[in-house]
Amino acid sequence: MPSIDEFGLIARLFAPLAQSHAGAQSLRDDCAYIDGPDGMAWALSTDALVAGVHFLPDDPPDLIARKLVRVNLSDLASSGARPRFLLLACCFPRSSGAAWLEAFAAGLAADCQSFGLALIGGDTVATPGPLTLAATALGDLPAGQALLRGNARAGDDLWVSGTIGDAAFGLEVALGQAPEQPELLERYRLPRPRLELGMALRGLAHACMDVSDGLMGDLGHIAAASGLAAELWAEMVPLSAAVRARMGADGLEKAVTGGDDYELLFTAPAARRQDLAALERSLDLRLTRIGRMMPAEGPDQPVRLLDGEGRPLAPPRPGYRHF
Amino acid sequence: MPSIDEFGLIARLFAPLAQSHAGAQSLRDDCAYIDGPDGMAWALSTDALVAGVHFLPDDPPDLIARKLVRVNLSDLASSGARPRFLLLACCFPRSSGAAWLEAFAAGLAADCQSFGLALIGGDTVATPGPLTLAATALGDLPAGQALLRGNARAGDDLWVSGTIGDAAFGLEVALGQAPEQPELLERYRLPRPRLELGMALRGLAHACMDVSDGLMGDLGHIAAASGLAAELWAEMVPLSAAVRARMGADGLEKAVTGGDDYELLFTAPAARRQDLAALERSLDLRLTRIGRMMPAEGPDQPVRLLDGEGRPLAPPRPGYRHF
Repeated sequence: MPSIDEFGLIARLFAPLAQSHAGAQSLRDDCAYIDGPDGMAWALSTDALVAGVHFLPDDPPDLIARKLVRVNLSDLASSGARPRFLLLACCFPRSSGAAWLEAFAAGLAADCQSFGLALIGGDTVATPGPLTLAATALGDLPAGQALLRGNARAGDDLWVSGTIGDAAFGLEVALGQAPEQPELLERYRLPRPRLELGMALRGLAHACMDVSDGLMGDLGHIAAASGLAAELWAEMVPLSAAVRARMGADGLEKAVTGGDDYELLFTAPAARRQDLAALERSLDLRLTRIGRMMPAEGPDQPVRLLDGEGRPLAPPRPGYRHF
Repeated sequence: MPSIDEFGLIARLFAPLAQSHAGAQSLRDDCAYIDGPDGMAWALSTDALVAGVHFLPDDPPDLIARKLVRVNLSDLASSGARPRFLLLACCFPRSSGAAWLEAFAAGLAADCQSFGLALIGGDTVATPGPLTLAATALGDLPAGQALLRGNARAGDDLWVSGTIGDAAFGLEVALGQAPEQPELLERYRLPRPRLELGMALRGLAHACMDVSDGLMGDLGHIAAASGLAAELWAEMVPLSAAVRARMGADGLEKAVTGGDDYELLFTAPAARRQDLAALERSLDLRLTRIGRMMPAEGPDQPVRLLDGEGRPLAPPRPGYRHF
């Protein structure tokens, strides 16, 4: 880690360039928004993946392509948008051969098919460096109905979909640091964007984001954007059987700070608990109440991790940072 | 160069993924199109730049940022769109320090200001490889009025804006292979997207594209997309005084095959010559008639380079390819 916080610096330097368009959400949300036809809005998300940083260089090419697509679709899911279009910037190493490229394209084709996406543009270049991929995904939704990070209200329940931590443990499998466990490995390699959930949460959830950099850190983003504090109940964090079996003393910390979950973290008023129970059944997707939003007591919007008796646990290290 | 044509392979592999959306233009145009509000369309373009491939690693960071913006805006110019929004995927090497990042952001800010662009989203990651940048630019235009590569008609005049080859010679300056010549260097480092021209050509030009990979090769794209052949008149290709002064025996070849011109190459019926002369004056931008479009005589759509007496010159090597 360098001595200054480059990510914070970049955020400060870039933020003024977004001021002229309200739909940019000050560059602090998962998506940006522009006007579409007939009362619709377009949600846009751009994500970049670098070999050796966001995936392993020898990961199967079809899964790399699908991870690229799905990481972007997870942003659309968190805004409540329906996926429509994709633009790609592919920087392929000169060593990429025909078989590798064919497998990459096959993975891309599979996910375009699954998610109803059309590839509408992009750029392909050669790079002397690692495989580097960027995608811009566009989805549509009714104008004004996007789910944003900053809309949580004090007293809201805090919810998360699926299970947390599988991908962090899956990365250990991918790195050969843990015994083979296909379901964990797959969660690392192949995110499952919660698109149906995101669309169903429009008009139901207050705030929403996708968990990509660790549950604790991402909850901090919702709290900060909403000007609130949050409680996270450690014992309620949903863990898969595979993660429970693998967990050591630092297991919970790894689960709530590890990246790549790509679940939706959202807040909703207590009055919507029955609606969410019904939604859990109709989507056949676990939805767990894991905490609540509270008024901020000072300039900070802290996220407190509490044990089963409501006692604070030591704060885990911050979420994953690339620098 | 590997033994297979990876760019051709990638084009064949990706094309089927674009079929479901007509506005993708089969991935063969400078921009893609989606519906906007109130009878407008959004034009979208994505381009990637890699240090050591598309710019030199020690180029000034503000100029790198501005080149990234302008390469994308040149695509919008070629479609006749007005620039509106930008999304960035920045993969910064870990060695990027605060001063470098501040200069990069300052360049970005300058061009966002100049071109009326709002930065609306993106992603910033660290890379162990070279600085790698991708941008998606969005512009608006009246629906159905986009300038496309494939709309040339037999008998059309062929026109180009500005001068050709400056950037190819400027690259030699940047590489220290030629004596200092600021105006050539600047043409390499800082493209000037012909946005006013592009918007003015709506309803006037038939086909249009920006010259980024070399005039001859890009003319081949217009010919192929339009199902036509083309003549390019060598003596009419507009060259700056700086290029003429620098030209050796292979000068014309370098000028018509070198990349990074970012001028507009377009076709228009002979009946519009007076309109184009008026446009040249009002924009204070040189517009030169450099050839014509002709019926294709066979399955190929050849581009022939002719001398002042109409005799074919030896075909120059193809335009720059990254692989």
